[in-house]
This record gives sequence, C-alpha cells and structure tokens, in this order.
Amino acid sequence: MCSFEEEVNSLYNYIFTQTKSTFYAFNKAYAAHSATTPLEPWTLARRELKPHDVQIEIIYCGVCHSDLHFARNDWGMTVYPIVPGHEIVGRVTAVGTHVKKFKAGDLAGIGCLVDSCQECDNCKEGLEQYCSEGAVFSYNGQERDGSGNTYGGYSKSISAHENFVLHISDKLPLQGVAPLLCAGITTYSPLRHWKVGKGMRVGILGLGGLGHMAVKLAVSMGAEVTMLSHSAWKKADAERLGAHQFVLTTDEAQVKSVTGYFDFILDTVSAEHDYNFYLALLRTNGTMVCVGVPPAPAVIPAFNLIFGRKSFAGSLIGGLPETQEMLDYCAANNIVSDVEVIAMKDINEAYERLLKGDVKYRFVIDMATL
Amino acid sequence: MCSFEEEVNSLYNYIFTQTKSTFYAFNKAYAAHSATTPLEPWTLARRELKPHDVQIEIIYCGVCHSDLHFARNDWGMTVYPIVPGHEIVGRVTAVGTHVKKFKAGDLAGIGCLVDSCQECDNCKEGLEQYCSEGAVFSYNGQERDGSGNTYGGYSKSISAHENFVLHISDKLPLQGVAPLLCAGITTYSPLRHWKVGKGMRVGILGLGGLGHMAVKLAVSMGAEVTMLSHSAWKKADAERLGAHQFVLTTDEAQVKSVTGYFDFILDTVSAEHDYNFYLALLRTNGTMVCVGVPPAPAVIPAFNLIFGRKSFAGSLIGGLPETQEMLDYCAANNIVSDVEVIAMKDINEAYERLLKGDVKYRFVIDMATL
Repeated sequence: MCSFEEEVNSLYNYIFTQTKSTFYAFNKAYAAHSATTPLEPWTLARRELKPHDVQIEIIYCGVCHSDLHFARNDWGMTVYPIVPGHEIVGRVTAVGTHVKKFKAGDLAGIGCLVDSCQECDNCKEGLEQYCSEGAVFSYNGQERDGSGNTYGGYSKSISAHENFVLHISDKLPLQGVAPLLCAGITTYSPLRHWKVGKGMRVGILGLGGLGHMAVKLAVSMGAEVTMLSHSAWKKADAERLGAHQFVLTTDEAQVKSVTGYFDFILDTVSAEHDYNFYLALLRTNGTMVCVGVPPAPAVIPAFNLIFGRKSFAGSLIGGLPETQEMLDYCAANNIVSDVEVIAMKDINEAYERLLKGDVKYRFVIDMATL
Repeated sequence: MCSFEEEVNSLYNYIFTQTKSTFYAFNKAYAAHSATTPLEPWTLARRELKPHDVQIEIIYCGVCHSDLHFARNDWGMTVYPIVPGHEIVGRVTAVGTHVKKFKAGDLAGIGCLVDSCQECDNCKEGLEQYCSEGAVFSYNGQERDGSGNTYGGYSKSISAHENFVLHISDKLPLQGVAPLLCAGITTYSPLRHWKVGKGMRVGILGLGGLGHMAVKLAVSMGAEVTMLSHSAWKKADAERLGAHQFVLTTDEAQVKSVTGYFDFILDTVSAEHDYNFYLALLRTNGTMVCVGVPPAPAVIPAFNLIFGRKSFAGSLIGGLPETQEMLDYCAANNIVSDVEVIAMKDINEAYERLLKGDVKYRFVIDMATL
C-alpha cells in the first residue's frame, strides 16, 4: 500500500475512535488497489444509515469469478480501490427509521444490486437488473446520490435500501446460501424465464460455480438434465449433483447422440468456446442462453439459427422479487451451493485456484476471519 | 447451350411427340447451366404423375433473391442445370388417382417445399421445413425416391404430392399472390411465432421483397410498425405500405429515439450488417429474428444479449399448414405483394436489377410468355 493510502486509513481509524458513531461505520475490508497487486486489508467508510437502510454484519461472502475479473480489471472498467463480493449473507445490526421489512437480528442477504431508479418500466416489473438508468451494482458501482463508489462484501458490514435486501431462511447452512445470491439467481432466472420443467431436455454447459447450481435447480424443476463437459472426470460429480446424463463433448459418438436433442441449453462458460457446436445440439425451436461472458464475441452464421428456428439469448442475474423467490424456493427444496470455506487472508490463493478451476464449486469467505 | 444438351432436348421432344403421354410431361423451362452463364430456354422431364400428385400449369412465378443466389452458386451448393422458382401459382391440370384435396381446374400454389419424410416430430407438427431427414426444396433439391434433382417454377408445369400443394383464393390478383409463397410465409411465420400483435413495437429491417411483406403483415396484425432503413427515399414507400414510423438509421438522433424501444425486430437483410447496432434498439426481453443470410456470420458480444435479456433468433419460411393459414389470412385481409410482372425472356435483366435493389418489390414472371 502506498503512504497516501496508509495516511487515509489512519485518518479513518482516528475518526472512528473519536466519534464512535453507530451510523457511520468504518469497516475493515479487503481491497485491490491495482490490477497487478494482491487484495490486502483496507478500511472503508460505509455511508450514514438512511431512513430506509438496512445494515448487515456480514457472516459469509461468496467468491464469484466476476470478483476476480474486476479485481484484475479484465473488463477495463475497474475503479480502484475495489472491494469485491456480491454473495453476501449476514445478520441485521441496525435499520433506518422507516424500515418495515427487517429488524435487528434478522438473517439477511445482498446480491449483485444495491440500488436502481425504481421508477422505470423494468424496475416496476421487478427487473431492477435492467434498470433503464442503470442499476447500481454492489461493488464498482456509482451511488445514485453521487456519494461515490460502492464497495462489496469482502468487508465487515454493508448497508443498502431495504428493497435491495433479501430475507434469508434459517433452515439452510448459511455458507451454502451465500452463493445463491449470484450463482443461484443467475441460473434460476433463465430456467424460469424459459419455462424449464417436466418434459424438457436441458443441457448445462460448464460445471463450475454457475453450472453446478444450474444442474441442481434444473433437476429440481423436473427437467431431464444433461451435463455437457469436455472433462471426463466431471462425470461422477455431475451425477452426484443430479444430472441424468453426462456427455463428453470431445467424444464424437456421444455428441452425435445429442445432436438436435435439447430444448434448452444454459451456457455458463466464460472461457472462449464455439457457440455453433452447441447450437447444433438444440432441437427445433430450441434456445441457448449464455450467462457467461467470454473474452471474444460469439461468431454465428445466420444459417445455424434459421435452420431449426433456434434462439441465442443472454440473461443477467435476476431482479429482487425473483431473487427472493429463488431463495425461498431453495429453502423449500433444500438446495444450497457446494462450497469450500476459506479465511479472508487466503483470498489471493483462492483467486489463483479459481483461475485453474480448482474449486468444488464455490469459495466462500468466513468473514469472522477478517 | 452445348451440343450434348441440344441432343438431349431433341430426344425429349421426340419421345414427347411419339408417346403423347399425359402422365409424363416434357416441360419448357428456363435454366442456368453454370454460375457464370445466363438463364436460357431448356426442356425438362417432369416425373410421371403419382397417385397423390397434383399437376399444376404455372401461371405466375415470383423471383426470389435465393433464385439468383442458387443460379450463380453463391452458396456453393448448386447442381446444374438449375431451374429456379419457388413462388408458384397456377391451375391444376391433372391429379393422381388418390388425390382428395384438389381437382382439375382449381387454383393452386407451390412454395419452397415439395416433399419431406412426413413422419418425424417436425413433420407431424406441420414444420416440414425443419424435417429431421431434410425437407425437399422445390429446386436444387434431391427427390426422396432417388430420381434426381427437383426443378422449380421457371417452367410450364410442376407436380408435387398434394400435401405440398396449397389452395389459392380467387379473390386476389394472382400475380400478387405468387410472392406470398416465399416472401409472405417467411415473414408471416416469425411474426406469428413470436406473437406479434396489438401493443407491440415492431421494427422491420430492410425494405425489399421480404421487408415490404413484413410491413404489410405486421401492420395488419395490429402492431406499431417502424421501418428501419439507411435509404431516406424509402420513407414515402414505407408509409404507403402502412408503416407508422420511419427511422433513418444513418441519423443519430432518429436512432437514439428508438434505442431500447422495440419488442421485436424482423431483420430481412441479406447484405452484411452489424447486428449489434440493431440489438441495441431492442427493449428488455426483446427478440431480433433474422430471415436473411448475409455472406459473413453475425459477430455478437455476449454482453449485448445479457444486458436486457435479449434474444437473437432465426426463422426459415414456414410449414405447410401455416403457409395455407397465411394464404387464407392474406385473402381475408386483402394482402398481396407489390409486383412488377416480367416476361420470361427478361429474367437475366431482372436479376441484374435485383442485384441493385431496383424492384418494387418483387418481380413476377408471367409464365404465358415462356
């Protein structure tokens, strides 16, 4: 850390010691200060609690691949310092004067969104992620009141408007719930939007943080689920997660057996891959939805969609009502993420393992270790 | 024409004179013999009438851009000689012994398809164009009985199984009906499949043979229709065809006014163009469907679909039941194509004008001039 930042941090600490304000939370956190330096301890100031704010002491925070992309500025839009983390579960420690939906002591969660205009057509329909003024993301976002950047869940506590806070059931292990806030809703939403259910043949592409949730959710919805993967060793895991079939995409005969087969393919892969290979596995009227963002654009000859009236679509997380619906659905159906709990100090090592795909299937930070 | 072909033709003529067979029709036609030679008169043998065949004396045949692509082998799959033409209307001159749906004297039509397996799931659902064994196209197709190539409507008569023959109303001018068999169904089918109607904002991209039908049909279905074009002079025509709005896509302010605006865009353009420019005009949950096939593939960053849950899809003509539905719909709603009737001998000149977009909006050959 440079001396300027050290000075800022010590000033924060000084103010914190002097004021003891309950409404102005100075937080321990982990931040990246550049694309090439590791995450390290940092102190950030959370905003004063507003009338509709809910303040949450963070218990677990999931580690999404986007965290790594943002920390390393892979998408060229990172504002430093950045505090990643948008799979947040914890306990309410304070609420603003107007808050009706939460009280201190409640379990609560925050996902990828912390604000939006709440007035446009999309917001009114509960599709805040597509807010026409731009939703405010939980980190690396810009607060709508101009007060600066948002900082995510690799920190002691977080506050947000109650409309962007989710109720968390106490029936499920909390560490397995955290990843539902991004990996869960990102896969649940397209499965629901495209009406996946009984009688549908569904292919899941990629067995990672998103893919393993997609398998569990699609199976729970009654679909016939096939895991598509180029790693033979993932077969046992796919079956353990509930997949009815495993297709090794490097095996010609296996691929041929599912050509023109699927009603729906959910593509969770963010590494570069040939979309046309998978579009060929769709039957007539089939849809492939991508939720991962590879570095290069999709290159698709129109013929590959025209023959078979196929659709290629995208989907971004989910809105607040649907995120709550998903959390309730998971509680009712006993669905959580498979996680490996880590200490905060091990985050940089976890990023390295994430890059190698060495995680089954989500790292979750125990925030008590901060 | 080479001497071998002249010899074949004279042999056909000899057999025809000798046998006077009513079931074996030797047809005058226009064919291309290579990618670089003009279409010229040719004689072809139509198959013996089968029990379920309907024989049609062709009155008008529309000129589709695909005819030109095939004649010149633009898609690298042409088998010469080729007789193009798949927008066929005429009168029934003979029927096979088992035919129930038609009798001599009926008006009848044939579109892009003349056969399919009729047993696969797609065929059973009336989606013969997506037949899993491959539909047989009206020209440059392979007959399912192994008897050779199919030849299209630039000829005196044609025969097909009654299931692939359409009833044509006598309420509409026949020359304007011919293009419905391809341009009509190609645009009608996606408009119906994606439920275009009242309260929907529809953009039509490209004002040609397909585009002008798309405007008429979408307007008749009750949608708010906007023509998207980079040619300012097309505004008056678009409005005459019924479009409620015209957006000049080279004018930044006009484009901005429809950014995030459309529920549905039907893209009829087969020249190279940037799909992302038009995807940006879709609102949340919007769909863009391409029915044209540009020479280069679509290049689409996943982000452009993910933000707004947008779909990019394709659609191929329509099945037989839907084609009949479309013809009946057009008869009931007084919808025909705007055509310029030409003589058979002028086909090569028409192709040159087609290449320049110099047609409003479909050439139709008066087959009496053959």
